[in-house]
Amino acid sequence: MSYRDEKLSEEKVFKDPVHRYVHVKDRVIWDLIAAPEFQRLRRVKQLGTTNLTFHGAEHSRFNHSLGVYEIVRRIINNFQDRPHWNENERLLCLCAALLHDLGHGPFSHSFEKVFKLDHEYFTQQIIIGDTKINEILERVSPGFSQKVADVIAKTYEDKLVVSLISSQIDADRMDYLQRDAYFTGVSYGHFDMERILRVMRPIEDQVVIKSTGMHAVEDYIMSRYQMYWQVYFHPVTRSAEVILSKILHRAKYLYETKEFTFKLKPTHFVSFFEGDVDLKDYLKLDEMIVHYYFQLWQEEDDEILCDLCERFMNRRLFKYVEFNPNLQMDDWLELYKLFQQAAIDPDYYLVVDSSSDLPYDFYRPGEEEERLPINLLMPDGSLKELSRHSDIVEAISGKKRTDHKLYFPKDRLNELKDETLKKRIKEILYAQGAKEDVE
Amino acid sequence: MSYRDEKLSEEKVFKDPVHRYVHVKDRVIWDLIAAPEFQRLRRVKQLGTTNLTFHGAEHSRFNHSLGVYEIVRRIINNFQDRPHWNENERLLCLCAALLHDLGHGPFSHSFEKVFKLDHEYFTQQIIIGDTKINEILERVSPGFSQKVADVIAKTYEDKLVVSLISSQIDADRMDYLQRDAYFTGVSYGHFDMERILRVMRPIEDQVVIKSTGMHAVEDYIMSRYQMYWQVYFHPVTRSAEVILSKILHRAKYLYETKEFTFKLKPTHFVSFFEGDVDLKDYLKLDEMIVHYYFQLWQEEDDEILCDLCERFMNRRLFKYVEFNPNLQMDDWLELYKLFQQAAIDPDYYLVVDSSSDLPYDFYRPGEEEERLPINLLMPDGSLKELSRHSDIVEAISGKKRTDHKLYFPKDRLNELKDETLKKRIKEILYAQGAKEDVE
Amino acid sequence: MSYRDEKLSEEKVFKDPVHRYVHVKDRVIWDLIAAPEFQRLRRVKQLGTTNLTFHGAEHSRFNHSLGVYEIVRRIINNFQDRPHWNENERLLCLCAALLHDLGHGPFSHSFEKVFKLDHEYFTQQIIIGDTKINEILERVSPGFSQKVADVIAKTYEDKLVVSLISSQIDADRMDYLQRDAYFTGVSYGHFDMERILRVMRPIEDQVVIKSTGMHAVEDYIMSRYQMYWQVYFHPVTRSAEVILSKILHRAKYLYETKEFTFKLKPTHFVSFFEGDVDLKDYLKLDEMIVHYYFQLWQEEDDEILCDLCERFMNRRLFKYVEFNPNLQMDDWLELYKLFQQAAIDPDYYLVVDSSSDLPYDFYRPGEEEERLPINLLMPDGSLKELSRHSDIVEAISGKKRTDHKLYFPKDRLNELKDETLKKRIKEILYAQGAKEDVE
Amino acid sequence: MSYRDEKLSEEKVFKDPVHRYVHVKDRVIWDLIAAPEFQRLRRVKQLGTTNLTFHGAEHSRFNHSLGVYEIVRRIINNFQDRPHWNENERLLCLCAALLHDLGHGPFSHSFEKVFKLDHEYFTQQIIIGDTKINEILERVSPGFSQKVADVIAKTYEDKLVVSLISSQIDADRMDYLQRDAYFTGVSYGHFDMERILRVMRPIEDQVVIKSTGMHAVEDYIMSRYQMYWQVYFHPVTRSAEVILSKILHRAKYLYETKEFTFKLKPTHFVSFFEGDVDLKDYLKLDEMIVHYYFQLWQEEDDEILCDLCERFMNRRLFKYVEFNPNLQMDDWLELYKLFQQAAIDPDYYLVVDSSSDLPYDFYRPGEEEERLPINLLMPDGSLKELSRHSDIVEAISGKKRTDHKLYFPKDRLNELKDETLKKRIKEILYAQGAKEDVE
Repeated sequence: MSYRDEKLSEEKVFKDPVHRYVHVKDRVIWDLIAAPEFQRLRRVKQLGTTNLTFHGAEHSRFNHSLGVYEIVRRIINNFQDRPHWNENERLLCLCAALLHDLGHGPFSHSFEKVFKLDHEYFTQQIIIGDTKINEILERVSPGFSQKVADVIAKTYEDKLVVSLISSQIDADRMDYLQRDAYFTGVSYGHFDMERILRVMRPIEDQVVIKSTGMHAVEDYIMSRYQMYWQVYFHPVTRSAEVILSKILHRAKYLYETKEFTFKLKPTHFVSFFEGDVDLKDYLKLDEMIVHYYFQLWQEEDDEILCDLCERFMNRRLFKYVEFNPNLQMDDWLELYKLFQQAAIDPDYYLVVDSSSDLPYDFYRPGEEEERLPINLLMPDGSLKELSRHSDIVEAISGKKRTDHKLYFPKDRLNELKDETLKKRIKEILYAQGAKEDVE
Repeated sequence: MSYRDEKLSEEKVFKDPVHRYVHVKDRVIWDLIAAPEFQRLRRVKQLGTTNLTFHGAEHSRFNHSLGVYEIVRRIINNFQDRPHWNENERLLCLCAALLHDLGHGPFSHSFEKVFKLDHEYFTQQIIIGDTKINEILERVSPGFSQKVADVIAKTYEDKLVVSLISSQIDADRMDYLQRDAYFTGVSYGHFDMERILRVMRPIEDQVVIKSTGMHAVEDYIMSRYQMYWQVYFHPVTRSAEVILSKILHRAKYLYETKEFTFKLKPTHFVSFFEGDVDLKDYLKLDEMIVHYYFQLWQEEDDEILCDLCERFMNRRLFKYVEFNPNLQMDDWLELYKLFQQAAIDPDYYLVVDSSSDLPYDFYRPGEEEERLPINLLMPDGSLKELSRHSDIVEAISGKKRTDHKLYFPKDRLNELKDETLKKRIKEILYAQGAKEDVE
Repeated sequence: MSYRDEKLSEEKVFKDPVHRYVHVKDRVIWDLIAAPEFQRLRRVKQLGTTNLTFHGAEHSRFNHSLGVYEIVRRIINNFQDRPHWNENERLLCLCAALLHDLGHGPFSHSFEKVFKLDHEYFTQQIIIGDTKINEILERVSPGFSQKVADVIAKTYEDKLVVSLISSQIDADRMDYLQRDAYFTGVSYGHFDMERILRVMRPIEDQVVIKSTGMHAVEDYIMSRYQMYWQVYFHPVTRSAEVILSKILHRAKYLYETKEFTFKLKPTHFVSFFEGDVDLKDYLKLDEMIVHYYFQLWQEEDDEILCDLCERFMNRRLFKYVEFNPNLQMDDWLELYKLFQQAAIDPDYYLVVDSSSDLPYDFYRPGEEEERLPINLLMPDGSLKELSRHSDIVEAISGKKRTDHKLYFPKDRLNELKDETLKKRIKEILYAQGAKEDVE
Repeated sequence: MSYRDEKLSEEKVFKDPVHRYVHVKDRVIWDLIAAPEFQRLRRVKQLGTTNLTFHGAEHSRFNHSLGVYEIVRRIINNFQDRPHWNENERLLCLCAALLHDLGHGPFSHSFEKVFKLDHEYFTQQIIIGDTKINEILERVSPGFSQKVADVIAKTYEDKLVVSLISSQIDADRMDYLQRDAYFTGVSYGHFDMERILRVMRPIEDQVVIKSTGMHAVEDYIMSRYQMYWQVYFHPVTRSAEVILSKILHRAKYLYETKEFTFKLKPTHFVSFFEGDVDLKDYLKLDEMIVHYYFQLWQEEDDEILCDLCERFMNRRLFKYVEFNPNLQMDDWLELYKLFQQAAIDPDYYLVVDSSSDLPYDFYRPGEEEERLPINLLMPDGSLKELSRHSDIVEAISGKKRTDHKLYFPKDRLNELKDETLKKRIKEILYAQGAKEDVE
């Protein structure tokens, strides 16, 4: 039997708290999971700094990747013998599902912004580069690894396959909503996935939803909306992200500064600082390693770096107030100067963070983060875009919502000796009626 | 208002997936949670290497500690106005519950055995030593930190207080059974805690259970039994523990060997290797740091250390067979020699691991791990030890069960060129009818 | 101690699958639950004919009434010591919560429409009339029963008390959404009630919600929306309701017809048929009794009554198609005639049913089913009506949605011998593209 | 296509709170569910009077029957392509699973004892007699109905098929434990059914369990044990059963008494009283009808019948004390006489009820309720009876436990005017230290 078709002698299962069991029967999948590049995902948290807000959210991307694989496996199981479904694409779908997040590094959000990286690029590199993963995929058939990479990059020609992994109701989103809800413990994030899987139908170029399942999809869209605002954009989590970004900025700045020398050479970070990260460097820097440096940097000879690292490790986060930089430019400028006067470097200690979400969108070609809309399969066989059929989805469709917050170290303000200065700063910060003791 | 009695202006809650919410109203508790020594528990997993078997089990001791606190808080709430309950002990109970695991280091089980450490000793040190935790507790009242330490050490005079934290049905066990079940996703570990809390009654020197709640307690005992054998002693988890221990042994051995020099000085480990760990060193070594070294040690100039670290990081674990060293001494000796012949160092690659559990025990004073038995409060006011009243508990009471496994790297055996040698080794290993492809 | 303040020697609990436990400590509550008029609620299903669609929905109004009581009990517990809360109203709130549905008869929806009854009227009568319930309430204090009746009628002067029992986020709705979701098994109906209870605050004339809890309330509103369309207005359930109404109509018609005599006198129904129901008659007619008659009526000498009863008992329901009587008046008239031609009495076998829901509404005084809107308590102490603060709620606020269906016995059509007639009827019915084999 | 192989055009699902969805694809199954004899099971509660103790337990046997069908369907799905499994038996298994409880009447336990009936006999009759069910089964193939009856009677030759429906770990038990736990809300009754289904293996004459699944089976056995003692044998439920039996006894006695005439002829009961129940009579008497009579009998001219019916309908149950009739014969005789003296007829108002359970048993041929033991399939292919491998099961195996209670109307005792008599009765009843106010 070819490697492609090889089955394990007995089906293996992983106990999964979200899907109960993850089932593996293909030798290829089993080998991919065992590959070092996949095992590395155990050392990257799914939700970065969220566990500082929701202490249960300590789960890794390893978890999530298995979950996405399992959902795709179940969808495909239902597709067997349906028209439009090509069983030859089965293994490709499973591999793409399992590996779609392979390129995530530690705290991707902050690292990518500060160091101008792109996890999708690294996912591609791991799949087609010199890795164990690539070796396994090429054993399936020469060129197979490129196909997997194409599916993940959404450039694969069979758009039905692509839509399983990336659309507005793909296996990725269905897994993370449920998984993140489970581990944080919030009551949002629940929807009837079993029903959604039952009403999914393959057509030529996409997966569509039988219209009888519309309400389950509405529920899924609402879950997504709630998870974004209740969990993913939680202001306390963003406070930790702000500090993390500032640590990386400061460390890079110090590295570039002639006058400063790190007590311990930040070996793992060098190529990141120099903007010249290759695959090998990238794979070595997991969250464990980052924490190691943050511990050490608490003892470096730079007050800002020490303080920020100490804050991050011990969860002494910044406080925040509502603050719209577009409308409050004068306030911003005054605060900036007042912080300078107070000797609290505003480049590190006065930070605006804005989060936006588009809960659901119909298709607008050319847009940046374009994802396929959800199409309903009507009883007469026609397709209807979801927001045209659902009042609720129509109501929130295409509506971008943005939340602006201003972050700062309240403890430092409280310690200020110059009472006039302190008073003026607080006046501006709490002008909007925010209560001062907000946690 | 004194610091002891200070309340937060608004009750704070932590979203907890197990208990739904953890409630904090006392300023002292709030401050303890924010202390660096407590935040450090985020970097120590509750179940060590178990996540290599049950991928969901990535939760930290921080999680569990909040959970124990919450359970004690609820128990005490029910105790208000009951005879025998002294409301003045409330804060002491809450602090002891929150802090009882403070001294746990990374992978406690292995570290303690290899380096002859004791996490309980370090818990005491953190509470009474020069730490932020101690500073907070002493602010409550001079000597208060010692009281907390005494409760955890079970030497505190008020045995009722001690039994809340340490008995055969204490808040510690009730939390970890439920929490570990939740995160692993296994269906064991559930019992009706709400009912148990309702039937707990304080008497002079212990917490007892109204006899009407006996069946809920039986269920708890059975949960414990199942969790031990299904999760805590899972043979795959033990395989990872075995490798971990061998890494520590090897690194210590190399450190002590004149001929060998580490490429990077294992600074964090030095005092561990030298058997001279002080509190400061201890607090610095969390699991993040351990992983950092394990990554680096994969590139040291020692084949065994490299191999073991690589196995641990990439989950290439040892396989196992049933093997009772007491009954199979000859097999053991022969295998040891055969491994030497095969140039697979048996001191590192042929390991017997035995796990034992005593699911429930009536009181046998003088025993090592003596925990108070569970007493039922009968309708006539008398006490009756649980196993005298419950058939099921009686059946398993005092019965120690031991499981012996022999661990070895099957991949290395398969690579052996000497077929006679290979065959003989496998003959012995699989003599008991174990199938060779056991996962 | 007065009866009003009398406590049970030990708190009693009811095991409840939705709230885990229902707690009773007041003697008055205990006695009310034991009263025959309250026990009768065990013989009235909470969801009428819904169990013919969702087989799990066999729970009674007894269940729900205990649940509403329990929720109010928990809310009030949180209110202790809050400004605006008057602890003297406690027992009144608990009684009103427990008894608010006391007047529900069998299949209220259909019975009320056909016989022009009003369960709220009977709730009042049971509370203030000659019943065991009234006797208990008057023992609390003379006039207390009238107060309870007033709270339920929303005429009680303390509007804060009223809003606990009847508002757009009252204990009634919170219980039935969760309970009906639990018993049907649908995944809708879940929201974080524990959080909502935590953020409820009493003010002068109503219960408001701290704005930090807005998202939990959004989730509750969405649950309500989904439950209405997925469960309460399910077209199969409505099919059973249609048949039930037609049975009652037919029986009444036959009773009024001189030529017809029932084999067994429908004693329990007489006063209903004659439009002269007193409290005693009303209390006797529970769902058990109704079923008894429906069984017997299958053997009466009227084809229509027999057929309809047989359909109801054996779940041979009518099929349905989308049909808007306002837009399809001509179709309606033609169908009516065709049915007559086919000798299928259209007055019983061709039925339009329309269901409407208003998911949430801001306050429009003078409207029929006026319920208080939900007000958020902002950080600065001001109130803000929910739909002004929540995008989602705003989107669905005040939007009435109506669903029209036409019901008919498809089996009878299929049996038609006149093929032209059959064909024409089906042409009209399935003109809108509905598939014929709809279940 | 033959009727036997006919599939529905689209799979139908029933939303089930326990198994999430019940899936039906076979036309035969669909038709059986729609048959009047099966729909009748909606009017028979699964747990008789248990809802008077656990108010959630209002679910019907209709529910349970669908559940057993679904479990067997899933087991068989896993069996496809396994050796020993004969796919031709598939439909037979599904039908037997669905119909196994078809003969249950109202409150089977009491009715069977009082009227000497046997629900298994009626199950057989419905399947092979003149019914819609029989008609459907015979359409599959002549003689098929008899095969279904044989499987349920355990006389079918293929013992593998029989063991799916009736063994110590059959689909029947797995469904009711979970279902009854769900509806009562108790925390017992949970076990990992998904895992058990995964480790079930067909062999020649039975279903066995792979030994790796032993702990899941232990958990199932313990669930069963807990459900029996916590739910099924709950003393309050038995109190209602006692009253119910006494009502039936009394009504039969009155019917047989020349001097007494029922105001309303108890038509539905006549053949039961006369010991001459045919299938048609049997099918007519569901729990709705029973309630109708109990309501009416509250107005008959017999004090005992009225009182007992009123107690049953309004849940005014008997109280109970521990009482072992074997050891307390003298007490029994004295109490009997004292009750006579007090004019409380002891034949109706002084009742001993004893419940026994055998949690698990290895095979003892010739025993009354003989069910196949559970066999484990060892790695070497041999079978091992469960209790020989599991400590816990061994501990409780074959141990019959009996609980004796004495029931009586405490309210009547309290009303006694003769204080000496009252005192002496209570002395005997509460001699064992039972508290008088037991609920």
